[in-house]
Amino acid sequence: MYRTHTCGELNMNFVGQTVTLAGWVQRSRDLGGMTFIDLRDRYGITQLAFNMETNAAICDEARKLGREFVIQVTGKVAERYSKNANLPTGDIEIIVDKITILNAAVTPPFTIEDESDGGDELRMKYRYLDLRRKVVRQNLELRHRLAQEIRKYLDGQSFMEVETPVLIKSTPEGARDFVVPSRMNPGQFYALPQSPQTFKQLLMVSGFDRYFQIVKCFRDEDLRADRQPEFTQIDCEMSFVEQDDVLNIFEGMIKHLFKTVKGIEFDKPFLRMPFEEAMDSYGNDKPDLRFDMKIHELTDSVKGKGFSIFDQAAYIGGICAEGYSEYTRKQLDELTEWVKRPQIGAKGLIYIKYNTDGSFKSSIDKFFSVDELKAIADQFNAKAGDLILILPGDKKKTLGQLSELRLEMGSRLGLRDKNKFVPLWVVDFPLFEYDEESERYYAMHHPFTSPKPEDIQYFEVDPGRMRANAYDCVMNGVELGGGSIRIHDQKLQQLMFKTLGFTPEQAEYQFGFLMNAFTYGAPPHGGIAFGFDRLTSMFAGLDSIRDTIAFPKNNAGRDVMAECPSLISDEQLEELNIKVDIKEK
Amino acid sequence: MYRTHTCGELNMNFVGQTVTLAGWVQRSRDLGGMTFIDLRDRYGITQLAFNMETNAAICDEARKLGREFVIQVTGKVAERYSKNANLPTGDIEIIVDKITILNAAVTPPFTIEDESDGGDELRMKYRYLDLRRKVVRQNLELRHRLAQEIRKYLDGQSFMEVETPVLIKSTPEGARDFVVPSRMNPGQFYALPQSPQTFKQLLMVSGFDRYFQIVKCFRDEDLRADRQPEFTQIDCEMSFVEQDDVLNIFEGMIKHLFKTVKGIEFDKPFLRMPFEEAMDSYGNDKPDLRFDMKIHELTDSVKGKGFSIFDQAAYIGGICAEGYSEYTRKQLDELTEWVKRPQIGAKGLIYIKYNTDGSFKSSIDKFFSVDELKAIADQFNAKAGDLILILPGDKKKTLGQLSELRLEMGSRLGLRDKNKFVPLWVVDFPLFEYDEESERYYAMHHPFTSPKPEDIQYFEVDPGRMRANAYDCVMNGVELGGGSIRIHDQKLQQLMFKTLGFTPEQAEYQFGFLMNAFTYGAPPHGGIAFGFDRLTSMFAGLDSIRDTIAFPKNNAGRDVMAECPSLISDEQLEELNIKVDIKEK
Repeated sequence: MYRTHTCGELNMNFVGQTVTLAGWVQRSRDLGGMTFIDLRDRYGITQLAFNMETNAAICDEARKLGREFVIQVTGKVAERYSKNANLPTGDIEIIVDKITILNAAVTPPFTIEDESDGGDELRMKYRYLDLRRKVVRQNLELRHRLAQEIRKYLDGQSFMEVETPVLIKSTPEGARDFVVPSRMNPGQFYALPQSPQTFKQLLMVSGFDRYFQIVKCFRDEDLRADRQPEFTQIDCEMSFVEQDDVLNIFEGMIKHLFKTVKGIEFDKPFLRMPFEEAMDSYGNDKPDLRFDMKIHELTDSVKGKGFSIFDQAAYIGGICAEGYSEYTRKQLDELTEWVKRPQIGAKGLIYIKYNTDGSFKSSIDKFFSVDELKAIADQFNAKAGDLILILPGDKKKTLGQLSELRLEMGSRLGLRDKNKFVPLWVVDFPLFEYDEESERYYAMHHPFTSPKPEDIQYFEVDPGRMRANAYDCVMNGVELGGGSIRIHDQKLQQLMFKTLGFTPEQAEYQFGFLMNAFTYGAPPHGGIAFGFDRLTSMFAGLDSIRDTIAFPKNNAGRDVMAECPSLISDEQLEELNIKVDIKEK
Repeated sequence: MYRTHTCGELNMNFVGQTVTLAGWVQRSRDLGGMTFIDLRDRYGITQLAFNMETNAAICDEARKLGREFVIQVTGKVAERYSKNANLPTGDIEIIVDKITILNAAVTPPFTIEDESDGGDELRMKYRYLDLRRKVVRQNLELRHRLAQEIRKYLDGQSFMEVETPVLIKSTPEGARDFVVPSRMNPGQFYALPQSPQTFKQLLMVSGFDRYFQIVKCFRDEDLRADRQPEFTQIDCEMSFVEQDDVLNIFEGMIKHLFKTVKGIEFDKPFLRMPFEEAMDSYGNDKPDLRFDMKIHELTDSVKGKGFSIFDQAAYIGGICAEGYSEYTRKQLDELTEWVKRPQIGAKGLIYIKYNTDGSFKSSIDKFFSVDELKAIADQFNAKAGDLILILPGDKKKTLGQLSELRLEMGSRLGLRDKNKFVPLWVVDFPLFEYDEESERYYAMHHPFTSPKPEDIQYFEVDPGRMRANAYDCVMNGVELGGGSIRIHDQKLQQLMFKTLGFTPEQAEYQFGFLMNAFTYGAPPHGGIAFGFDRLTSMFAGLDSIRDTIAFPKNNAGRDVMAECPSLISDEQLEELNIKVDIKEK
């Protein structure tokens, strides 16, 4: 071992001891008579002291050390003259009497500090240096801790960790697969799993009862801002359970993680909110409940007052921003521009200021009397000093816009505290979504999701109103995970395929293998999958998942550090029985 | 929840309680007046009892249940008339008064018993049914337990679990890569990792200090028996360590696993055997030390007695099979045929029987006097009753043949007990292997392996004699894992590349990225990787790794259950900018 201690563990208890440390030169201060070096490793920073008067030779040596040099030092632990209360090692320093340079370092392209001078691109290219920064490394340490606690909890609940294959069969349904040509089976391909869905259901058929895995999944999609081609799921499945059993177990997991990793205890059960309520009150199936500001529908109560925009709207709804009546004309104009941006897409914004003196000021003064404005305000339980914002239009679109507006106002009002965590379960999802374009129903979750027993009657007559035994775990406006109880009855499954527009032949071709397995005795089962990258970013208070991943890819799916993907040799292509064939576009 | 208890937990303490169980019908016995059903889940088997006299209706129902039906039953726990001491639940049975068929099952293609009537191929095709068998499921349970304990131990030693990417850059050196065409980067490919080697070394450059991961790796090789295209490694790396530090930490891990998972304590440190000694004494760099039977070299002591086979041999060596002097002529002939098989490739076998009466009988009686035979026997410390077996020839080949012969005799003598575990470290591996055909040196471990400091002097003059800071963890003749201390000095690394026949340009092209990272301050570091499939099979006492894997592939890399790899659509190929191009052979 090159050290007797780490750079994070020495304190007053060690004063007088001779120790050996190894690490990186974080920074160096030459004060003439004294030189100080901060020595860094994963565990902390320890100050090294060199005195020109008592040991000029080693002081000279120390002054030659560059930033990020890897060194080993031996010396005596001494109490510091000026202590640093912010560091666990801040009370002591090492009076060094031996330095060994283990490796010199060229100057890094950006500073290895919490606030680095390196831009995003540069830091990604030198990710191995970026990872030296405490703020980045801490995210990975948090991820490690979460992974250990997840497994500890699930192991304690009799879940078995089973590795499912990475080289699997390509399925045409769903998102695009990454594929892998098979050299030994010319012309044939493996696919990388988008999720271990089929395998975990097979494990239930095998009687494994409770399965979990923290597992890499792959999706060849055009990458939006915060997506990665490879991502990690906490994938779970249980047998002989109903929806409540799954919810209880995984509510327990989230609570366990918050308690052990963040010291936060949720003493109440998580709220369980039907999908419909989430949509009506928050315009969103993953409501941010850190603040209230519910959406209220006004459709029936504001029509017929001669305001044609309301009279023609299929839906009118609004939110009440508490204490915001002082918003200026300029601010309201700016907010109106904000909702009119293409990302939101509203045509305009109607406001009602309930002034602190009890008077009203509104963009619809012309059509609504003070009493009528007061009546609207009452629907929001608004009080003097509040600001009501209203959007009219198509119901689905307008709810979406109100949701965005609500989140924006929540942010402006400082109601979205990163250190506050409000979880809930969204339940009773619709079983199907109807796609106007292709004129068919799609499974909202996936084709194996079980309908609510009381809704099975609508299969043939009105699939659109059927609800599923599907659920999402939501926190602070972010979907952490989702799952469903699966269909284990073959007749129900066939009805499902039929509703999704599959001929029996197509269903057989695509899902026959799993359906066949089910004929040998499938237990009732259900499961859930959490996005581990997302969960970590929630715990870390990050906006993006990228910094929860050691070596992420950029939006073009490239690793700019390793320069990958890359060309491969003609020999490799030939062995794989494939040819590159780029079409002109 | 469909049950109040599992099928593995009820005993006399529960007698009189009403319980609900769910599981699979393992078997059913109709004794006329009584019907008994064994109900199975992952946790055990519980006997269900149905009495024709007291409840004919439910007895009739029970008789209709087929093998592997999934049922839910409710009834009272009762003491059994004839108890089964082999089952934890063997003292009780359930007097059932309600049966619900959760799912019917068609008859499985083989019996779900420890000794199944299904052949290998059939069981692989219906792997999800094969996994129902206790003997198979137990291997996966063991694997789960090992994975938890590995992480617990390494977490306790401050190792950080970091996920490294699966979509990485293809490297031309080493075994064949599986590749993945990138749709977003036409004509370019990702590769699947053969190991996270580069990334774990980068994490050391990042200062992560101690890294581990239980991770899937991929190798597109022609599959010999007991290889899988995807396999799992326990991958680890440490900074600021020397060889002994790595050995101590991972010896600790193996000891921890044996103690917690098998209740076996190794109270002594693992033997550390130099590679050269392993080769000379066991003909093998992974010696099975469950038994002694060392190889002794006789080259100098048996020449010049007129026996031309010895006189012409570059090497002569033998083993002593204790207590085997009674081996008959027929058995010796058969053994001679065994060593002459092409897999072993010896030309013949020379024996010396040291008979129980003290006399000698040998195939070389003609050339050696009794005293000379006795002198040979003394070299083996042989005693009356022993059998000495001798092979002459080329040194390397003959040692290999003697190794095989030793293992075979060990098996025949019953010295290779699956419940005995003898670990050791093989150390001081050669740094290079010389390949006669290509007339160049290859790195025995990999090009980043550090030489022994005292051997650096031979770099330019005699690379063949250089030893590496490389080590293997061996148990019962199986290599469980291996690793090395890495080179962290650039000049040494360049010398290494030069010796391996790389021009500076080639070295830059292939390894420049990692070498460049090293210029920013690489700490001294080293690591190890264990084969997790192999480790599990060692713990399970299996000869093959296949049954430690839930869904393995066959020797052609196929998953015969899911029928994969498979054809993909022309649209998929087109999107990926590739074409299938099968050459006629």
